[in-house]
Amino acid sequence: MDATAARIERALSEAIDSVAVEGCPPRLAEAVRHAVFPGGARVRPRLCMAVAAACGHGEDPAADAAAAAIELLHCASLVHDDLPCFDDSPLRRGRPSVHSAFGEPLAVLAGDALIVLAFEHLARRLGDSPERLAPLLLTVGGSVGMPLGITAGQAWECEPEVSVAHYHRAKTGALFAAATAAGAQVAGADAAAWRVVGDKIGEAYQVADDLRDVAATVQEVGKPVGRDAELKRPSAAGELGVEGAIERLKGLVKGAVDAIPECPGRARLAEVLMAEARHIMPKGLAQHAA
Amino acid sequence: MDATAARIERALSEAIDSVAVEGCPPRLAEAVRHAVFPGGARVRPRLCMAVAAACGHGEDPAADAAAAAIELLHCASLVHDDLPCFDDSPLRRGRPSVHSAFGEPLAVLAGDALIVLAFEHLARRLGDSPERLAPLLLTVGGSVGMPLGITAGQAWECEPEVSVAHYHRAKTGALFAAATAAGAQVAGADAAAWRVVGDKIGEAYQVADDLRDVAATVQEVGKPVGRDAELKRPSAAGELGVEGAIERLKGLVKGAVDAIPECPGRARLAEVLMAEARHIMPKGLAQHAA
Repeated sequence: MDATAARIERALSEAIDSVAVEGCPPRLAEAVRHAVFPGGARVRPRLCMAVAAACGHGEDPAADAAAAAIELLHCASLVHDDLPCFDDSPLRRGRPSVHSAFGEPLAVLAGDALIVLAFEHLARRLGDSPERLAPLLLTVGGSVGMPLGITAGQAWECEPEVSVAHYHRAKTGALFAAATAAGAQVAGADAAAWRVVGDKIGEAYQVADDLRDVAATVQEVGKPVGRDAELKRPSAAGELGVEGAIERLKGLVKGAVDAIPECPGRARLAEVLMAEARHIMPKGLAQHAA
Repeated sequence: MDATAARIERALSEAIDSVAVEGCPPRLAEAVRHAVFPGGARVRPRLCMAVAAACGHGEDPAADAAAAAIELLHCASLVHDDLPCFDDSPLRRGRPSVHSAFGEPLAVLAGDALIVLAFEHLARRLGDSPERLAPLLLTVGGSVGMPLGITAGQAWECEPEVSVAHYHRAKTGALFAAATAAGAQVAGADAAAWRVVGDKIGEAYQVADDLRDVAATVQEVGKPVGRDAELKRPSAAGELGVEGAIERLKGLVKGAVDAIPECPGRARLAEVLMAEARHIMPKGLAQHAA
């Protein structure tokens, strides 16, 4: 585990340890830990910390707090997405989903508690630099709330007419855009300019996810595959074909790298983004795309 | 509608209008409005604003923001509580519950979006007095999160061994305690001392709710009655009998009044609390208890 990965796990542990204390219903605490540990690739908090580092705030504890808040919200969204009324997914990261392991009531509550914890954690850790709290909280909140955050993205699935652009941008892109914007805000850099980088990475990640859904195995992704076609969800792989989707993904990563604003760690960040892009590609395709 | 009631409705409308904008999935926006309007008695935000007023901050916009955040979280908890996996309630406030009207997916998402909105609204409205944001956010967040907030309260229903004290205190009391603590924090008063008042009001409200469940009609409360016995939930009316529960309620309200800290509006607040107590008692019993 590299130093950044260790910092992210520690930040998440500290956030949960602060509320999973005496007096908390033990199974709720267990369900919340199950939702967060062991994690996936932690792509969003890594991105947040990489941007803060590129802007010269690599050691700032506010970066850890923002990264943890973003990952807690991501985990919350997965728990609720897996519920029977949405994807009805028995598996997540190769293990039982929260509702499979703890039942539906605790899955709803664990998701709720994780959303609350994300904001509490920011408030607790940013208490001594209050001028950064409101902007960070609005960036992070905007990525999960209405009109353009994850809940809105998911809600497009309940509309008679779906705007595919809105759907993807809100359901997947918003948290990536928040990751780069928040990393910039930690450092006092221009959030709007950095948001563009996150937008493109988010879109690339969505294409990679679509590709994984058609081209990967259950073992590789740890959840059921082939669900997009089954649930008739809009998919880049469905629209562009596998080859076309790979080209699109490469174009988006290049666009993200080109959009990195001038900053002390620009070159290093470009390397990190390229490495992440290789990482999110399904294994068989990564070789093919190289 | 009195002036405070009008302010609360306006604050809630403004919070929702700020996110139910172009680009938001229309049915999600509709579900969120359905969850919040028309409201119930708005007991919690009234309490928050009454405390702020008693402390000399009756006209402070931060009071409106805190009151709205608290009511949004209360509404979120009702939406999720009504879900099929919890109370499976078809009715709320005399109308279809959110999942009955909009389906289960939008009910989960509307609850999530309301939680997020509560924190965003605080950040947006407290942006120009950042030193109050973190304390207010932690007060409000603590009342809904782990270990002692609403989600924890609800989660006690999923434990093999239930601590009745923890259950009621978290499920109902926490948001009342937050209402008085937040009202005090708006005014820079001692939140811990004011929390005691909210604790007692919350306990009184829980007893009144238990009484309504055994003694009121569906028309009167706008949701199914007799659910506590049916779901074998701990209930003051079940433990103490109706007479005993009424005595307990009166004792708690007196305790709350006695606990009001020294402040400019002490006498007026005592009147407000007594009026609220009469208001929450089921109609038949209110006469009986007078």
